This record gives sequence, C-alpha cells and structure tokens, in this order.
Amino acid sequence: MTTSLTEMEILAIERACERLVLDWVDLNDRQDYESLAALFAADGTMIRPNGDPLAGRAAILKSYQSRPAGRITRHICTNIRITVESRDRARGLSYAVVYSANAGEPAEGHFGIKAEPRRLIGEFDDEFVRTLEGWRFSTRRARFVMHT
Amino acid sequence: MTTSLTEMEILAIERACERLVLDWVDLNDRQDYESLAALFAADGTMIRPNGDPLAGRAAILKSYQSRPAGRITRHICTNIRITVESRDRARGLSYAVVYSANAGEPAEGHFGIKAEPRRLIGEFDDEFVRTLEGWRFSTRRARFVMHT
Amino acid sequence: MTTSLTEMEILAIERACERLVLDWVDLNDRQDYESLAALFAADGTMIRPNGDPLAGRAAILKSYQSRPAGRITRHICTNIRITVESRDRARGLSYAVVYSANAGEPAEGHFGIKAEPRRLIGEFDDEFVRTLEGWRFSTRRARFVMHT
Repeated sequence: MTTSLTEMEILAIERACERLVLDWVDLNDRQDYESLAALFAADGTMIRPNGDPLAGRAAILKSYQSRPAGRITRHICTNIRITVESRDRARGLSYAVVYSANAGEPAEGHFGIKAEPRRLIGEFDDEFVRTLEGWRFSTRRARFVMHT
Repeated sequence: MTTSLTEMEILAIERACERLVLDWVDLNDRQDYESLAALFAADGTMIRPNGDPLAGRAAILKSYQSRPAGRITRHICTNIRITVESRDRARGLSYAVVYSANAGEPAEGHFGIKAEPRRLIGEFDDEFVRTLEGWRFSTRRARFVMHT
Repeated sequence: MTTSLTEMEILAIERACERLVLDWVDLNDRQDYESLAALFAADGTMIRPNGDPLAGRAAILKSYQSRPAGRITRHICTNIRITVESRDRARGLSYAVVYSANAGEPAEGHFGIKAEPRRLIGEFDDEFVRTLEGWRFSTRRARFVMHT
C-alpha cells in the first residue's frame, strides 16, 4: 500500500524508476554494459526477448558482452508508466522501437549511416526495488511484439 | 489563472494528465475499451481522425467495440505537453506513431509478427477536467498528419 | 554541486528543461521560428547537424527562416534525460526521429499526406541556463546518427 507515502515521495520514486528505464536504453545504445548491469539489483534478473533469464549482474554483463561487435542501435523508448507499490517496490511498463545499423557502413554526409531495414517494436515489463545503492531493476522482461 | 496553485499542485496535475494520455494508448493497444471509455468524463467527447465526434462514454465504447477484430496496434506516444489552466482544467498536445499488424500472422521466432507497411503519424489535442473520479478527458481530438 | 537544492527544486528544473526540449520540436514542426529562437539564451548557440554553429538568436532565426518552404516535419522526441548541475545550469540528452513530407502532396482521406521515405534518427546534446526570462538553451547540438 502507498497510503503512507506523500505525493512528493511517490513522484520521486516514479522519477527514479523512469530514469532507470531511460538509463538502460542509453547504456545499451552506448554499449557500456558494465554500467548497464549495475542498473540491476545484485540478484536482479534480465529476461531476454528469446526467453533466456540472466540471473545476477555477472550473467547480464556476460550476455551483453558476448554480442557481436560492430552494430549500432538506438532504442526509441516511450510510453513509460510506473506504478509505485510501496516505499521499496514499483512496477513499470514501456515501449521501445529499436533502430539498428552496421557500424561499418559509411556515413552519408551529416545524415549518419544507413539503418538496417528491420525495425523491432518491443515492450519492457519491469519490477523495481529500492536497494542501499538506490532504485534498481529486480526483474526486467523484454519482448518483441512486431517488426517491420 | 494558475496563480493560486503551488508548484507541487501544478506538477501533480501535469502528471495526472500525462498518465491519462499514456493510459489511453495502453488501453487502446490492449483493446480494453471499457476502461478506455472510463478515461473520459461522463459527458466527454472523442473526435476520431475522420472527424466523427463520439459524445459520451457509451458512444465511445460502441465505436471502439465495433472495430474489426484481429488487429494488433502499438501507439508510440511522445511529445506530451500539458498546460494547466486552473485547479480543474488543463490542455494537452501529444504525438503518436501507430504501428499495426494482423494478429493472424505467424510470429518470426522471438521477433514478433510482421507489421503492416503503413505507419500513421498522428496528433492528439486534449482538454482535461477534474471530476469526482479524478482527472478525465473532456475532449480528445485525434488526427493523422502523415503516413508512411 | 546540487547539494543545496531540494528534491522539489531539482524536479522543477528537470521539468522546465524537458519542456524546453519539447517546445523546441513543437515550434520547429509548426515553423514558428521566432518563438524557437526565443528558447535560446540571448547569447545561446545552436549547432546544426552539419556542424554549423549559429551563435545568438538572430543567427538561429535567420538560418531557420532560410529553409525551403513547403516541407512538413514531425520530430518524435524521446529519451529525454536532464541532469541538474546547479541552481542555474543543467545538461540534457534526447533522441528525435524525424518524419517529413512535402506539403504539396494531397492527403489520402483522413490518413494525412504521404511521408518521404527517408527518416532521420538523431540526438540532441543540450546545455541549459537559467536566465532572467527563465530556463533557456545555452547550447543545443544536433546530430544525425542514422537514417532509413
């Protein structure tokens, strides 16, 4: 129950969790996987779109570091809706449209490089927990709904 | 005039209206049209992109329930800007990019189903009112600006 | 350092800067370049994707007014992340997907006009300053990462 939380406390939790969601896509796009893994609680779990659960920061880091190099992505992250459940727990839903490109492509003037034709439209289903380090993902489940 | 509202009151109204905008697209994408109609004031109006006004929750519900089944949509909702006009009134503007797919299409592995090639880029022009049930749409006007 | 700022003060700065980011794209899409230039500090600089720096409101206004007429754009603006640095300074990052169309195209019923096939995926890197007129861009750097 959130009855004991003030409006300002609820707002601060919502903002902290929204920021985690945006930081995750930023760190993913910048391929800073150590910082990305640190957005999870020590025992947090990332469930990949293929259903694979990655339990704990080390497993998350290893999985992302094993991705093929040379790919650029931009996760257009929208529709972020956080629901505060208690002083220490919250849930969230968000959408992401993933544009990607081969980093080896030459840039066309100042218009950047050519994106791959397949675009993925996905969703994130998140559980957040307040830890001694601040708010973190306890579970982040990704899935793709459709693609172009 | 909002001179009598505190910064925190304005912020709370903005958040409530932003959430209505995001809830509308979420309930639309999940095809929960009863809950979608309940986001409007009892005498609220939805103006469809074709110009048809749907006056009142029953008319809104009937219109959405009569949509052809078997279609999946994802409304990528962005650029939400709320302007608080008083303790009980606010206005809003937002964009939506609508991806859709035929639910009968087979999924391609974990990449979801193939989206239809036409994507719609639209805008919402909203008026919000505070009711005994909380903030609701008094008028929501949708229009499409362009399409791919 | 933000140690002397209250949570509410930080939140208010974040909101003001987010709003600047959304107002910029709105005024750009509506081609209201005088108002767009006024979002910058008097000595603010806009750095265009081609690297050209536009120093001061007059230079910004002149550059935007010299654009070819007859083009409609919609900047889908997402992933806005503001970092407050002090009572008077903040930084921000955001993404934009730019859809455009030729205003001379006929509308297809209520689906709007046909978008040009090239879509640009870009980023903004912003510095904000509190002025006597309120928060403004001190520097806004735009670049395109990829395109469809």
